[in-house]
Parts: sequence; structure tokens; C-alpha cells
Amino acid sequence: MTYSGRELRSTADETGKLRLTLDTSTLPEPGADEVIVRVEAAPINPSDLGLLLGPADITTLATGGTADRPELTFDIPEKRRGGVAARLGQSLPVGNEGAGTVVAAGPGAETLMGKRVGMLGGAMYADYRKLRTRDVVPLPDGASAEEGAALFVNPLTALGFVETARSEGHTAIVHTDAASKLGQMLQKICLNDGIPLVNIVRSEEQEGLLRGIGATHVLNSNDADFRAKLVDAIAETGATVAFDAIGGGSLGSDIVQAMEQAASRRMTEYSRYGSDSFKQLYIYGALDLTPTTLNRMAFGFQWSVSGWLLTPFLQKVGQETAARLRQRVLDELTTTFASHYTRRIGLAEALDPEILRAYERKATGEKYLIVPTQG
Amino acid sequence: MTYSGRELRSTADETGKLRLTLDTSTLPEPGADEVIVRVEAAPINPSDLGLLLGPADITTLATGGTADRPELTFDIPEKRRGGVAARLGQSLPVGNEGAGTVVAAGPGAETLMGKRVGMLGGAMYADYRKLRTRDVVPLPDGASAEEGAALFVNPLTALGFVETARSEGHTAIVHTDAASKLGQMLQKICLNDGIPLVNIVRSEEQEGLLRGIGATHVLNSNDADFRAKLVDAIAETGATVAFDAIGGGSLGSDIVQAMEQAASRRMTEYSRYGSDSFKQLYIYGALDLTPTTLNRMAFGFQWSVSGWLLTPFLQKVGQETAARLRQRVLDELTTTFASHYTRRIGLAEALDPEILRAYERKATGEKYLIVPTQG
Repeated sequence: MTYSGRELRSTADETGKLRLTLDTSTLPEPGADEVIVRVEAAPINPSDLGLLLGPADITTLATGGTADRPELTFDIPEKRRGGVAARLGQSLPVGNEGAGTVVAAGPGAETLMGKRVGMLGGAMYADYRKLRTRDVVPLPDGASAEEGAALFVNPLTALGFVETARSEGHTAIVHTDAASKLGQMLQKICLNDGIPLVNIVRSEEQEGLLRGIGATHVLNSNDADFRAKLVDAIAETGATVAFDAIGGGSLGSDIVQAMEQAASRRMTEYSRYGSDSFKQLYIYGALDLTPTTLNRMAFGFQWSVSGWLLTPFLQKVGQETAARLRQRVLDELTTTFASHYTRRIGLAEALDPEILRAYERKATGEKYLIVPTQG
Repeated sequence: MTYSGRELRSTADETGKLRLTLDTSTLPEPGADEVIVRVEAAPINPSDLGLLLGPADITTLATGGTADRPELTFDIPEKRRGGVAARLGQSLPVGNEGAGTVVAAGPGAETLMGKRVGMLGGAMYADYRKLRTRDVVPLPDGASAEEGAALFVNPLTALGFVETARSEGHTAIVHTDAASKLGQMLQKICLNDGIPLVNIVRSEEQEGLLRGIGATHVLNSNDADFRAKLVDAIAETGATVAFDAIGGGSLGSDIVQAMEQAASRRMTEYSRYGSDSFKQLYIYGALDLTPTTLNRMAFGFQWSVSGWLLTPFLQKVGQETAARLRQRVLDELTTTFASHYTRRIGLAEALDPEILRAYERKATGEKYLIVPTQG
């Protein structure tokens, strides 16, 4: 018996076009320690959009294909083509995580048959997915696919921030784009764990949202006195690590500079090398694709700016820590890590121009879930 | 008995002036584990100029004082004043390292009496210096003050780069401003220790200098094909760590990008997160004071850009490693770590306008030594 279904794919080609299609994929019987899962829910995370749409100019959207098998085409601006040279010509499956029901199990995986599981491993925007047993997690009894669809990316990233901060000796954290789903989870974790968190947002609405879940330090980067408030909040909390979703421009630099200014307040003697307080900025997102500007002359010499990504983090901390974090996600599935979706769409609807433009905007408070069984 | 002598001091004040003076300093008898050293030689390192002249505009030099006790005044441009707020109004002594003869020794330090020693600890541009015994190193028999004046800053920094690279698992190194005294020492160490080194310089003259001491990878950043050559050299050597003296602009970013391109050549499968090769850029100097620009979208996510400074490095590695590195400097004092000075000047001459302009230029191949006994 084989399992045949649709699979969403993104292909950038040499002529400067990016094409989204629904291909047919046929899966053979699962091998040893493998299962086949019928996908019932897969969220659209910001990190999925990078692969789905990557460098495409959304305003150039052109439609094609049929109602059942729609196809969308976009132009890739000349200046962004260098960054995607490595994927040109490759048809790439999309969707980092999801949940569904095991419909076939290979030798050694029989106990999973019929179970509802959360899944990690890419290619989730599909009707069926073949996975190794280690990449699925049985959901608690009674949990829906929707509840288990986003076990990994946001929850483990938020927990990963706290784990990283702790293991490197930081006692308080700064977070940008703090009203995101991830940011809300981080605030809840920090409240539970007693870790001061300085949230940076870009609107009053976002500020209200975070205060509503108990945040005490929320700064709006559009306020005229933002920088002064930032130094005060950092001095008050003692934050020496920041996680930045924006990446481009100078906000990250402003945060490190504010940390140095806060540290300088405690210095009694001048040093041309700055404070001895070590300041760490992690860039984990790219909401702003422009280069990062570091005004490092205001940092002293004790600083570091680094990329942060979930997969290498999990590899670095090892299986035991990864399992502990994963268990916490299951334990707090309907509280800290509950995901709320504003719209559920079928696989074909993911390629509907209006719907695509809507989820591509990444508006605060909006969250899309792909439900392949919906069509 | 007390020791009285001149001491060079730099003072930035609230009115936007920076003033260099020769003050009189009187030292009481040394206490327990303390010595008084007659300073006989102190190099002018690039790292000294930051404290000596810091934010001053050299073209605004104005003279004053007397022949014996000259005084120089400079304007501090408005936009640079923020960076020196912490030192305003403080009269700061200058000179990181030097050598001289112990002329007085406190209880517990008697064996050092009359010995010639190398010294670390600042305030070396002076006739006399009081130090704790742990901050002086007796020189090998027959070594001159000139030979022992620069035991610390350049040698320990060059050794520190190699130590840092090794301890973090890197097997080859990239270095900018590579024809500097420090760069030449680093090349000699790397040749001795069998570590591939990619040298980046800015002229043919500098390229020739490095090739003359055995360098095999020397790239001129002004060459039209510099970036392509950089990727090749990094691919060939496997360098994943760089030490950058320049800091400003995008050269550091170009190096990280080249490391990622070299790593991508070995990848068989596309990942939108880039290679899994960890790339580290350390910024240890500020030849370019402008902000650092990171084109991080071309780095993948496995990267880090950090400040590097000798003192925290030595604190981090601990006394045993620091002692081992220090011993290597003494063992190779007249070979790997030999310093050659192009001009020896008295303390008062350090404030001679023509001489100051000359050492402030930091020209390749030129190196100044302050010899207080010369006047």
C-alpha cells in the first residue's frame, strides 16, 4: 500500500522567478522505525515564510494552474538573487512543524499506529508525511491536532532563549518584536521562572497586549524617549542578553549600547576599554533584511553579537536538555504554549492570492493554520 | 626617601579640549610586595594612542608650557564628545607597558632590588613607576630595557589570538592589518606552530614585508579580485576565525561572508539557514572608528562577532595559561617577539608637535620608543 497526496513546493529558478505549486507525492510503506502521518494541522510561522516566499517580490504575484492545483509565480528582484543562489532550480517542500494521525507504522513503530502526534522535520504542508519515530511526539490524550501542531518552533525557541541566558550566566533578558506569539510565550515563561524581561514593541496596541499577560517592562521603540527608558529598564533589571527578531538596522546596537550605559552607571573609575560587563546580542530573525549596523565604539570591548537558531541550539545542549524542554511544552500545552489561530485554510487556499497576502503580512495577533483535510 | 619625577598626563575637559601635560609625581617608599622602577623604555603602541589622544582632532594642535614642561592642547570635535563623557575632567596617566630598573623594593620584594624588569599596568610614560611585584617580570640576564619594554601588549595579544583560536576549535586564522608589528609576530607564531594564517593588508609594500618573513597567504584588500581571492584562501586553509584590527566598515563582514561561501562549497544540500560551519570574527582594534556593517543575511545563522581585549582574555584563561604565554615571550624575546624601534624620544619630545604628528600617523614599519632618561 502506498500513500499519495498533495505537497506544497517552492522553486526559485535561474530566470529570476519563484513558483509555488501543489505537487503529487507518493509515499511507499514506512521502513523500520518510520511512520506515515496524515497531516491534520500545520501552522504558518514567520520562519516558514522565509523558505516559502524567500526573496520574492510579493507585489509581482501572478496566478496560474487550476482551482484544485493552483500555481503562483513571483519575480525575485535582481539584488536578492545572490542570496538564494544555492537553492536555484530545487523544488523545496515547506512547513517546519505540524500534527496529525499515524496511518501506517513500520517495524518497531507499531505502538504509534492510530496515535495523534506532533511532528518536526519540514515538508509539513502536505496531505501525508513520512517521519522517523524520533521526530514525532505522541500528544496527551484528548489533545486535538490543532493543539499539537505548534509544539516545537515557538515553544522550544522561547524556552531555548531562557536556557541560553541561564547557561551563560545572564539573569535578565531583552526581547524585540516582543508582542509576537513567541514573545508572549517568552513573557509567560519568564513570569513563571522569575526572570526579569524587557519587552520592546512598536505600537501601543502591542504594549497593551503584553501588559495584559502580566508584562511589567514594555517599551515602544517609536517613543521619543525610548533610548533613555531602555537604559533605565536595563539598569533596573540587570539584563545583559538580548534576543532580536529584527536583525537589520541599529536597534540591536542600541540595546548593547544601553547595556553598556547601564553598566557604566555602576563604574567608579574611568576605563577607555569600557565596562567589564559582558553584553550578548543574539539575532534570531530577519524582520528587517537590511544590514546590521553596530556602533561598537559605544560598547566597550566586552560584547558579542551572534546568530541564534533552534536546531544548532538543540544539538549543542544535548538530548537530555532537549527532552526536558520538550516535556515542559507537553506539560504546558494548553497554558503557556497554547496557540490560537485566527484562520484555518486548506492546502489549495494557501495559494489563494488574497489569503497569501494576508498571512504574508505577519500582522500582530493573526495566525494561520493549514488544515490539509479542508481541501 | 621619596622618588620624584615627571609623568605624562592626558586630560579631556568639559569645554571640549584635550590637554597633554608633564606633571610632577612624587612616590613614597614602596610598601609590602611593591617596587619602584626607574622607567628606561616604554613603547608607543596603537593602543596607547587611544588614551593619549583619544577623540582629539590632531589638526587643531596648539602649543604651550615651557621647553622642559611642554603642554599641548587639542579640540575634541562635538560628535566625539559623547564617547568620552566618562573621562571628562580626569587627568589620566598614559603608557601600557615598559621596562626599567628597580631602585627601591618594599618588604617581600628585596630580591628584585637593582634588577631590570619588564612592566605592565599603565602610567609608564613617567620617570618612576610604583608597581606590585606581580606586575613586573625580571628580564633575562643581559637583556636591555629596550628589549624588555614590549613584553606584553603585542606578544601576549598575538599569542592570545592563537590560544583563543585553538581553545575554540579553529584550525586556521584570518588577520587584518596583518603587516603591523603584532601581525608580524602572529605570522611568526603561526609558522612555528603550523597554523595556516590568511593575512589581509592594504598595500604591495605590506604584502612584500609579510612574504619576507615567510607568509604564504597575503591578500591586498585594494585588489579588484580581493573578495574572490579571500574565499579561495579561506577554502584552502579552512579558516573559521578572524581577528580584525580595523573594526569599522564592512571588511569584517566580508570575511565572515567569505567563510560562509567557502563552507557552502562543501554543502551537498540546500539549507535556508546556511552552512553549519561556525564563523567567529573578533574585533580587537579601531583603526576605523565608523560603525561596523554586517551583511548578516549572507552569513547563515552560525556566526558570532565579538570584542577581543587582552586583559579579559588573560583573566578568562587563568594564571597557569597566562604564565605559560608569558614564559614563551621571555624564551623568544630576541626572535619571535623582538621589537625594532625606528626612533627613541625623551618624555618632553613626546609632546613635540612634529614628533607627535609622526607617531600619531602609525605608519607601517615605524615604531617609537619613549626613553625618559633621554630628557
